[in-house]
Amino acid sequence: MIVVNIIGSGHVGYHLCKALVKSDLVSINQWLIRNATTKIDFSFPGDIVRSIQDLKPADITIIAVHDDAISEVSKDIPFSNSLVVHTSGSVNIHDLDRKHHRGVFYPLQSFSKSSDIHFAAVPICVEALEKTDVNLLKALAAALGSTPYKMNTEQRQTLHLSAVYVNNFVNQLYRIAHEISDAKHINFNILKPLILETAKKVQDISPYMAQTGPAIRNDKKTITRHLKLIDNDTHKAIYQLLTQSIKDTHGRR
Amino acid sequence: MIVVNIIGSGHVGYHLCKALVKSDLVSINQWLIRNATTKIDFSFPGDIVRSIQDLKPADITIIAVHDDAISEVSKDIPFSNSLVVHTSGSVNIHDLDRKHHRGVFYPLQSFSKSSDIHFAAVPICVEALEKTDVNLLKALAAALGSTPYKMNTEQRQTLHLSAVYVNNFVNQLYRIAHEISDAKHINFNILKPLILETAKKVQDISPYMAQTGPAIRNDKKTITRHLKLIDNDTHKAIYQLLTQSIKDTHGRR
Repeated sequence: MIVVNIIGSGHVGYHLCKALVKSDLVSINQWLIRNATTKIDFSFPGDIVRSIQDLKPADITIIAVHDDAISEVSKDIPFSNSLVVHTSGSVNIHDLDRKHHRGVFYPLQSFSKSSDIHFAAVPICVEALEKTDVNLLKALAAALGSTPYKMNTEQRQTLHLSAVYVNNFVNQLYRIAHEISDAKHINFNILKPLILETAKKVQDISPYMAQTGPAIRNDKKTITRHLKLIDNDTHKAIYQLLTQSIKDTHGRR
Repeated sequence: MIVVNIIGSGHVGYHLCKALVKSDLVSINQWLIRNATTKIDFSFPGDIVRSIQDLKPADITIIAVHDDAISEVSKDIPFSNSLVVHTSGSVNIHDLDRKHHRGVFYPLQSFSKSSDIHFAAVPICVEALEKTDVNLLKALAAALGSTPYKMNTEQRQTLHLSAVYVNNFVNQLYRIAHEISDAKHINFNILKPLILETAKKVQDISPYMAQTGPAIRNDKKTITRHLKLIDNDTHKAIYQLLTQSIKDTHGRR
């Protein structure tokens, strides 16, 4: 049985707690929720505490707070010499206070509080300074049904950067398509199967192999016609830059 | 029974033919395949012809050739006064020869010859100058199990432009993430669940509502750290432009 504390009830802390309470391999002793108005839509058998001073040692204490607060929170924990991890994609492991055994437990997924997270489909990146701690974090990931990936801080930060491209930036391209089609009274639903198919395709073949369209064909006529259709300067700049990027990748000129 | 001719055996012509032969509502009379080496991996009960001069009238003649060839092919068809459609997202309906009843039958999907297309999940945009022809094209879409959407040429061209954003450009962002993570020996598989989840999310909520990440939070510290991690100038320019676009959309400064 892995005994766990969780600090924080934002998206990551909330979903981790909700998933971990279901595991027979994990016992959550304490959950630190500063905000007394937080609503909990599942049965939590442990203790909810309001002050970090009330926390007692556990096998793993998970700090799931904003990046900027991680370092401070790790200092405020009233015990030492046990494993304390944060859940951030970008914060260095060494930002945690040296009085702890330090580690990282970073689930790579886009969290929003409303929809449930199926951790079996969420890769978890683990990092720790001691091998036994790495193994403990791998066991915690396994208790969630997740696949753990051991990586160092530089790799995790690079993965976080990559995630911005495939999640935030991709979503913004969806948004731009939504704006463009809305302006001509075209139902955005028409684009949804293509959005899904595009994501499914790279589950099996590489994005390099999956590419199609006017840029890779170097179809100047279509590209010129498209640029004429775009009246928003940012949308146009994005069109030009990504078209150039596709051409560069595939050696078109 | 809708009697159909198909001209062309590229991705669209091939998959349309393969799907239409399965329908009891459609009979494909003739399939024009210029290239004698084209391999066909399904049983085709109609006539394969090598010259456009051999084509005979049908209820619908589908021109599935490169955009640049559509106009010429429509002139070469040796009959007139029946419905002739092209399958392009960007070619004007009026580029078809005036001797025909003209129309468009544009399936919005990313076609590649290797993988089968499930037309039930492919929206089909139809356009025609006569109402009876629109209805005939809707019936053809229905025979494929597809949902037809009636739209004019300007709307179709705008949809095609939107599709470039959500398909080609999104795929290029996947490619960039692949490059960035490969350079640090990070397995691209780790990003695949996030790619899929990002596409699934906008099936139910708008891209505007689905946005997360450093740009919408205006998290300057993370953005600065990310920009330092990127050593490719194009990747950096794309990061900056899409970050700005997200900020503009959500009124951050």
